[in-house]
Amino acid sequence: MTDPEAVGGLGLRWLEADGPDADIVLSTRVRLARNLQGHRFASRTDMDERRRICDGVARLVDSSSLPGGARLLAMEGLEAHSRRILLERRLVSHDLVGRVDGAEPAAGAALLAWPDAPVSAMVNEEDHLRLQCLVSGLSAVDAWSLVDRLDVGLGSELPLAFHHDFGYLTSCPTNAGTGLRASALVHLPALVLTKEIGRVLEGLDRLGLTHRGVEGEGSRFTGNFFQLSNQTTLGRSEEDLIEHFGRTVDSVVEKEREARQVLLNAGPRMEDLIWRAYGLLRHARLLDYRDLSELLSGVRLGVSLGVLKAPAIGSLNRMMVFAQAAHLDEAAGRALSAEERRCHRAEYVRAALRDPGEASTSDAAL
Amino acid sequence: MTDPEAVGGLGLRWLEADGPDADIVLSTRVRLARNLQGHRFASRTDMDERRRICDGVARLVDSSSLPGGARLLAMEGLEAHSRRILLERRLVSHDLVGRVDGAEPAAGAALLAWPDAPVSAMVNEEDHLRLQCLVSGLSAVDAWSLVDRLDVGLGSELPLAFHHDFGYLTSCPTNAGTGLRASALVHLPALVLTKEIGRVLEGLDRLGLTHRGVEGEGSRFTGNFFQLSNQTTLGRSEEDLIEHFGRTVDSVVEKEREARQVLLNAGPRMEDLIWRAYGLLRHARLLDYRDLSELLSGVRLGVSLGVLKAPAIGSLNRMMVFAQAAHLDEAAGRALSAEERRCHRAEYVRAALRDPGEASTSDAAL
Repeated sequence: MTDPEAVGGLGLRWLEADGPDADIVLSTRVRLARNLQGHRFASRTDMDERRRICDGVARLVDSSSLPGGARLLAMEGLEAHSRRILLERRLVSHDLVGRVDGAEPAAGAALLAWPDAPVSAMVNEEDHLRLQCLVSGLSAVDAWSLVDRLDVGLGSELPLAFHHDFGYLTSCPTNAGTGLRASALVHLPALVLTKEIGRVLEGLDRLGLTHRGVEGEGSRFTGNFFQLSNQTTLGRSEEDLIEHFGRTVDSVVEKEREARQVLLNAGPRMEDLIWRAYGLLRHARLLDYRDLSELLSGVRLGVSLGVLKAPAIGSLNRMMVFAQAAHLDEAAGRALSAEERRCHRAEYVRAALRDPGEASTSDAAL
Repeated sequence: MTDPEAVGGLGLRWLEADGPDADIVLSTRVRLARNLQGHRFASRTDMDERRRICDGVARLVDSSSLPGGARLLAMEGLEAHSRRILLERRLVSHDLVGRVDGAEPAAGAALLAWPDAPVSAMVNEEDHLRLQCLVSGLSAVDAWSLVDRLDVGLGSELPLAFHHDFGYLTSCPTNAGTGLRASALVHLPALVLTKEIGRVLEGLDRLGLTHRGVEGEGSRFTGNFFQLSNQTTLGRSEEDLIEHFGRTVDSVVEKEREARQVLLNAGPRMEDLIWRAYGLLRHARLLDYRDLSELLSGVRLGVSLGVLKAPAIGSLNRMMVFAQAAHLDEAAGRALSAEERRCHRAEYVRAALRDPGEASTSDAAL
């Protein structure tokens, strides 16, 4: 369905689970909000101005200031299905792709991406440019240094809106200054089970980190997955922000590991939870994505603790991506009905658990 | 723990699942309430009279009027654990064994049973004698003819209280006449899923059959298992009662089979339910008995429909008996704590599902 050239393996690097604490921290993302001098902020731009901004980026694709192999995907040029795939890969936002139910996305909305690198940039989102890097595990420094390199490259060609007092200027004042947002997708089942999670999240608030569910702002958490990110972007250096963020998330990881040991020592209840989740995933014939998230949470915990010998964490990451609706449609080669999708999801997961290598076949097909 | 000589394989014949419709009708039981001439009804007897009644039965054990190999187990002579085993085999009632938490059962309370036959008789329960036959599947005629033979044998030696107008006299008038109660333990998951069960049970009421859960009078049903039995014991011949009972239960079995086909044709929801139950039983580390009943219900449905190739219905019957508390204690050789029991139950079920033959090893040990 998707033109393989268009989407390919974009956004899949974090799945490898080769980063630090990748069993608990699925991924770290650092994004920088940037705007171009001489253009109005996105909310004030018209179609022409948005196209001119996008053209400016397009001219850089083959320049030496950016890493080679850059690809600029205009949202207008992609079918809805491909835009859904990009959304499910967390490479683009709902704002960028517009409604994916057939309505066209806004003029000039585009994604600049590299098949071989975990960096990308949304063009004409809330800011003219949203650079981001998405890596495995708790790797805020790595993600920051990669996105910083992209920022330097783009900034050397495109004059960025910068104020000597405020720093980078952004469409929404909460992003001004560094324009930096670091976030980590963390899995905290033991803190949820021991009911310590409320206290931990409150503690994070005081340290300047917000939390939300995996589906984005305001969403409820499912499967004990939480997105943690920094609130402050102003008044501190990027290095400070990244260091503070990494240290704070690391303390959460420590608390989660301690809670797991407490639970493991308290009897077979957690083992039971793990094996039940495994048993259901291994045998279910119908799976909602939400259902899947909850069950993958149990299996992930089991693998992390060594209660389950397989699958690898990387396979579990893959399931989270490839068992999503558009990815299932992609593998089936057609748009599935809601019930078909629940069937296909269960079938895909069963195959992946039977043969952990199998979970990666779908992305080979893309 | 139990003296193997005392309990042995008593009450296990129905597990073989060799009776008609044994996938849906787990067992049929026919019991006859009988009282001895010249003795007061049980509620009026004192210790001495109860002992005399029991002695009268004891004298018959080696007589030629009863089948050979009869064994009379005095409840007073059994430890609480053995009485629990008999309860779990459905050979004795709570009334007969007294409290099993250590308090002694009543004087003269006994079980007359045969290791090689599915018949038995409680002595000094609500009536002086409660003869019963417990067989696999929907086999009311067979069960009746076996228990009738025992009745003829006992009646030829012991003068039974009989009135030419009322028939057999019983402690509670609702049992007078034939003293016959036929009951079938049936598994009706599809009628429950399609919500037809209420209508079906109401229909049974009008046909003179009552229903209750598996734990006896007033109990809620678990695992979609229902006990159906006749209400009327008076004014019709035993053959009439048995014929009517068998025909009525058979109509319920038909309705259940129809509902299963409707569900199977309505999409993968039932297959999902079956496989989820299987997955949980196959992998859980802790199981309540109630939990087990619900899950065995799904697996039984799956085996009956051919969705699951294994285990055999007989293995599922075995699990219902051998995963009960006293049977687990017996297999462990000691009294387990509540949590240990949940562990042992899950372990036993996993082994039984891995190797369906294994479910029978525990009774070999008895």
